[in-house]
Amino acid sequence: MTSSDSAPPSASALAIGLADIEQAAARLTGYARETPLIESTLLNQRLGRRVLVKAECLQRTGSFKFRGAYNRLAALTPEVRSRGVVAFSSGNHAQGIAAAAQFFDIPATIVMPKDAPSSKIKNVRSYGAEIRFHDRERDDRAAMARAIASENGATLVPPYDDPYVIAGQGTIGLEVARQANQMGIIPDAMIICCSGGGLAAGIGTAMAAHYPGIKLYTAEPALFDDTARSLVGTEPAFNTVATGSICDALMARTPGEMTLPILRRYFAGGLTAEDSVICRAMRAAFEDLRMIAEPGGAAALAALMTAIEEDRLPAELQVIVVILSGGNVDPALYASIIAD
Amino acid sequence: MTSSDSAPPSASALAIGLADIEQAAARLTGYARETPLIESTLLNQRLGRRVLVKAECLQRTGSFKFRGAYNRLAALTPEVRSRGVVAFSSGNHAQGIAAAAQFFDIPATIVMPKDAPSSKIKNVRSYGAEIRFHDRERDDRAAMARAIASENGATLVPPYDDPYVIAGQGTIGLEVARQANQMGIIPDAMIICCSGGGLAAGIGTAMAAHYPGIKLYTAEPALFDDTARSLVGTEPAFNTVATGSICDALMARTPGEMTLPILRRYFAGGLTAEDSVICRAMRAAFEDLRMIAEPGGAAALAALMTAIEEDRLPAELQVIVVILSGGNVDPALYASIIAD
Repeated sequence: MTSSDSAPPSASALAIGLADIEQAAARLTGYARETPLIESTLLNQRLGRRVLVKAECLQRTGSFKFRGAYNRLAALTPEVRSRGVVAFSSGNHAQGIAAAAQFFDIPATIVMPKDAPSSKIKNVRSYGAEIRFHDRERDDRAAMARAIASENGATLVPPYDDPYVIAGQGTIGLEVARQANQMGIIPDAMIICCSGGGLAAGIGTAMAAHYPGIKLYTAEPALFDDTARSLVGTEPAFNTVATGSICDALMARTPGEMTLPILRRYFAGGLTAEDSVICRAMRAAFEDLRMIAEPGGAAALAALMTAIEEDRLPAELQVIVVILSGGNVDPALYASIIAD
Repeated sequence: MTSSDSAPPSASALAIGLADIEQAAARLTGYARETPLIESTLLNQRLGRRVLVKAECLQRTGSFKFRGAYNRLAALTPEVRSRGVVAFSSGNHAQGIAAAAQFFDIPATIVMPKDAPSSKIKNVRSYGAEIRFHDRERDDRAAMARAIASENGATLVPPYDDPYVIAGQGTIGLEVARQANQMGIIPDAMIICCSGGGLAAGIGTAMAAHYPGIKLYTAEPALFDDTARSLVGTEPAFNTVATGSICDALMARTPGEMTLPILRRYFAGGLTAEDSVICRAMRAAFEDLRMIAEPGGAAALAALMTAIEEDRLPAELQVIVVILSGGNVDPALYASIIAD
């Protein structure tokens, strides 16, 4: 990607490398927030390990997705960018694209599921984007987005299978390394929530470069473990269901074509968590961190809790980074979970 | 205070100056978190001004109180400190003292009401402190704390009338100035929630030193406006009621003896907010910032909302810093407020 903006990656090469993430970090300076890396005495006591929480729920738009979206738009030529941008997303990528488009003052159209959380719909509109709704079961959202893009000459920004999107999310890994270093801490492992894999691929690339011995794990809802199964098999695995997790942001059916090779290169494996543990992790974030995690945003913490409780996390992994990737949850759902 | 650790301030001098806050900042480095200063497109749209939010709800122990507590303990001689610390508090100061004492590995005893929220009791114990319960109706908690301190030779740390406590809270102002400078922003005003006044006095001292023209305002619940009235009168004002605000952390009956002279020197006036607006501010923090504010923690944002809605905020104040001072709210109460 570094040498040619438009060429697809070759079959043997990975879509991005560390240099792409460093370029993305330079583009994002002053636009994305540097989110805190937090260690909590209460959470450490709860889990019996040393846990560092990367709080991307505090990122602009309430999730990490702004990073990849902004990096993608910033790397377009001004002429191409001026024709606008199109995306399909259940919510967080939608808000990231809408907010990034607002910075560049260009039109944005988002294809969203009609059952997306109402706060995500409201916020996409607040950032000035237009929404077209689709049905998760019946409609081909990617085809809808492609049609809109070709009508307008706009650029379609996919949620994860794009080198600039992956590199943008990877800037989180650079921040974690710098922040951990300032704290005098070397992480043994990091757990990253995973749907299409853009976040995990980006962060994994950065973390593996900074910590050659680190153990990296994806985190998925229990019935949506396509990445965990893809990491142990030779072919990409698919989920058998398309809906049914509380994690509305983590229901991609299979890993991305660009992301899976990166995950296979750097990741030790995939962890999962049941919805009930996701809810417990959201409560733990409220009680111990005073942070709002949406269900998908709490998946990494929930996967860590599950792995510890089921005694499946190697004892030598004492210092573990987890990402809280987003906080975009409707108030009524959030209230029902934390008051439970 | 800088020249003599133990001498009380003279009647004519203020209890602290900028140098005391800078010393506190050096003591707190690596212990207190540098909390983010956040600007939100959604919140700016909601309020029609440019608002910077200092997120002390993300401070260690869930409120700013850790800063003053740690600074007070760090400034004791090791011999005095080793005899332990005592405080009386039903909430945030209790947790701040308990967590600071844990860092120094010294005994801490907190006098708490026996009907204190169970989560606060649990957290104080999690930080290793001992709790002595008092009965709100029958017992004099300050006398109990003094008796425990004199039994053990321990140091009693008051919640606001202490130069080291005030200076510790003031480190927030240094951070705001540095962070705003990095963002290329010069604030026109800052609003700081106020009970006994330690937070406002500390931050005000730092902000006035960095921004000579800034307008500083305290924020209080509507029926607990002792500071607002004290700022316009010549004598300290008292609240006529002792309970009855949703802001459990903002019910001191009158400003502190050390804090009021500082507030009179630097502050333009006092703002207030009704409990209903406090609840709206907590929802705005949830929706626009994805941050958990406890009722008292949202008082500055609520006072800003009230002043704008009632057209009482001068139009030239376009860039306004508000502090979200804490996030220690029980889940059931928080759920009922955000789902309302």
